[in-house]
Amino acid sequence: MSDLLIRNCGVLNVTFDARAFVLHEHDILIGGGRIEAVQPTGQADPSHFREVIDGTGLLAMPGLINCHAHVPMVIFRGLAEDVSIERWFNDYMWPLESNLQPDDVYWGMQLGLAEMIRAGVTSVADHYFFMDEAAKAVEKAGTRALLGWAIFGSGGREMVERSAEFVADWQGAADGRIRTLMAPHAPYTCDDDYLRACLKEAQRLGVGIHIHVSEEMGQTRASLEKRGLTPIQVCEQVGLFSQPTIIAHACGALPEDMPILAKHGVGIAHAPKTYLKLAMGTAPVLEFRRNGIPVGLATDGAVSNNTLDIWESLRLMAMTQKQAAASPEVLTIPEALTIATRESARVIGLPDELGALEPGYLADVILVDLKGIHHQPLHSQTASLVYNTAASDVRTTIVNGRVLMRDRQLLTLDEAEIVVRVRANMARLAQRVPNQRIQVYNP
Amino acid sequence: MSDLLIRNCGVLNVTFDARAFVLHEHDILIGGGRIEAVQPTGQADPSHFREVIDGTGLLAMPGLINCHAHVPMVIFRGLAEDVSIERWFNDYMWPLESNLQPDDVYWGMQLGLAEMIRAGVTSVADHYFFMDEAAKAVEKAGTRALLGWAIFGSGGREMVERSAEFVADWQGAADGRIRTLMAPHAPYTCDDDYLRACLKEAQRLGVGIHIHVSEEMGQTRASLEKRGLTPIQVCEQVGLFSQPTIIAHACGALPEDMPILAKHGVGIAHAPKTYLKLAMGTAPVLEFRRNGIPVGLATDGAVSNNTLDIWESLRLMAMTQKQAAASPEVLTIPEALTIATRESARVIGLPDELGALEPGYLADVILVDLKGIHHQPLHSQTASLVYNTAASDVRTTIVNGRVLMRDRQLLTLDEAEIVVRVRANMARLAQRVPNQRIQVYNP
Repeated sequence: MSDLLIRNCGVLNVTFDARAFVLHEHDILIGGGRIEAVQPTGQADPSHFREVIDGTGLLAMPGLINCHAHVPMVIFRGLAEDVSIERWFNDYMWPLESNLQPDDVYWGMQLGLAEMIRAGVTSVADHYFFMDEAAKAVEKAGTRALLGWAIFGSGGREMVERSAEFVADWQGAADGRIRTLMAPHAPYTCDDDYLRACLKEAQRLGVGIHIHVSEEMGQTRASLEKRGLTPIQVCEQVGLFSQPTIIAHACGALPEDMPILAKHGVGIAHAPKTYLKLAMGTAPVLEFRRNGIPVGLATDGAVSNNTLDIWESLRLMAMTQKQAAASPEVLTIPEALTIATRESARVIGLPDELGALEPGYLADVILVDLKGIHHQPLHSQTASLVYNTAASDVRTTIVNGRVLMRDRQLLTLDEAEIVVRVRANMARLAQRVPNQRIQVYNP
Repeated sequence: MSDLLIRNCGVLNVTFDARAFVLHEHDILIGGGRIEAVQPTGQADPSHFREVIDGTGLLAMPGLINCHAHVPMVIFRGLAEDVSIERWFNDYMWPLESNLQPDDVYWGMQLGLAEMIRAGVTSVADHYFFMDEAAKAVEKAGTRALLGWAIFGSGGREMVERSAEFVADWQGAADGRIRTLMAPHAPYTCDDDYLRACLKEAQRLGVGIHIHVSEEMGQTRASLEKRGLTPIQVCEQVGLFSQPTIIAHACGALPEDMPILAKHGVGIAHAPKTYLKLAMGTAPVLEFRRNGIPVGLATDGAVSNNTLDIWESLRLMAMTQKQAAASPEVLTIPEALTIATRESARVIGLPDELGALEPGYLADVILVDLKGIHHQPLHSQTASLVYNTAASDVRTTIVNGRVLMRDRQLLTLDEAEIVVRVRANMARLAQRVPNQRIQVYNP
């Protein structure tokens, strides 16, 4: 007996050289949380599997990966609109987060994970506070996560130790679905010594680092003025990149940063909706890729991105890169799908385990329904994936071989309870007391 | 007895000075295809209405308006990806359209109308070929449309007459749901005499004009080089703007065009997904609005926009304008909602009939469900409308007081048959014979 058979679906293949095509009428055989085989329908005997899903008319693809989020921030969504980045931080986000209690993170994480399971997002690299609570939510939801407890220099050595404890406590938990790393907030909120302290813990624990760097060009300019170094150069000088590192945003990366990022294999998390909404310009994705630097998709938090929908990130990335390059011929559909799959897996440090439906890979699989009228007639499945697919087109979400959503029904989370729990605190969460902000933005 | 009562819903109000708020627990009373009253729940007696819809937990807003589309082009969707504008026209779109037969327009229009009804789009200004077939589809679908038969100078006077015949035949048809106008393609495909011939027919028939002008800056530059006039100046010089005019795109509008557009009250149809995908830059929406020029939302055709989803146009407009202005504070949520409602109604020439839920307005109403997990917790309904709402959140679509979709079920169109009919011709439609193109793009 094996665990799960997905019968008679299309299977999206994205090759390392960025070709994308669909195998028709194939089965996916899953056992021990991994893909055992992908083969033409008709060869596997359904009676040999504990569970069979009929994939007829559906397209299987790797579960989507959100390479940078602050998932529990969904509890504040819609509270900071149409404001400058400075006001977004100083008058909204950081005052709002002074209301945060551990229980908010537990329920907020569940809320965001429910949204992501519904959208076919199976992995998230999350960067937030009270992360024990976030980890408990991931354990319950059944998804995969790379978790870091966000800390600021103002938190002192105590918070370095606290976040290192979190790393040690949860590394490999939930059947290996949870991995952890150190998560200093940014070079502008953590001085060099503080970054070094984080690095030391990361080295001691054998984990990576997840940090905001060069989020937008203003930060890069400020760093150059203050220290003659770009924020990426600062991180390198501190030695941060000696550990596997995820950088969020890097819209302010300069040409001189490219060889540094390439040399250390630093991964870039790209969240284009945030960049548009906050008018941050865009990241040099094409240049990262020309330099062999991995780029993965992200949503950032829901207070800037509003949703945790990686489909929207996918198409916005493709479109904003075309616009930035003044050429509709760049960032093609196959390349966009490569970034959404294999490259995002590289960014979160699982290049040979996620991002493809191949034997030996972890069984994080989603089934997408392209029969909706907004896809018809379906001349190109790959074009529809990038430009037409909505979160609501995802029918089934599987992580580690376990079905988390079947036919739009969540199986691990109680949405009604989650919503009730979060709503109960809306008034408290929406309070803004500027002098109670958790930090000051002044890069 | 009156016709329809929508009970106990939220009602979106967007004021002329761009404030947006929601009235809670209100009823909408509908009779004779128009809104009779919007009042607090409890006053109206449901037994006095032929039909009652329970709006509890739903938000009512004006049906969305698509101010510029080529709806039947859905039949080609996904066939022209990642190519330059020149190739998009010359190697893809115009060769593909040489395959077009009247029946394709009939079924393609139904397909696109089904997609739009599902997305809450109740009106479309459509610009395509074989428009008798498109009008028949609108008649059947029950939606509202402003239809023009697209013609090129190469079609000769015969096509001016043919399209004028269409205008006369269908003006006011389908209980007034169908209005018509003249639709010369663009100044770069129609010479001045041809535009004048179209204008003459528009004047004779008392209708407006719908035309592509200054689609992107390259067209403006070419026109300035050839004639020393912008395409908008050309249109004015020809006299085109003496009739109510909709201009598609105008990404290449210059400051000197603003007073012309303002003076004649020319409306701009804005389709930001096309502009991103084809790297066309963006239109000066903020400058149009500063000059009092009406701007409405649009999708353009599905071969550039991929879907006919006005929600996506709405949020892309807000975000790309923020990005272009390098300020997150511009094109706020209330302003975006004003453009989606009252201003789009102005663009299609129905400023006092559509775009608001007020007594006397036409009863084009949609009910949106903001209870989905991607809206939770709902701190701001207006933020969710702009940044979170998906086409699939629309539960019910009403046009002229008639329910076209109830609880996601289409009542006027047979989706299964439409899809079968369109799919049957996919191979023929996908043929590209470049020397059979219907036009050459060389602005």
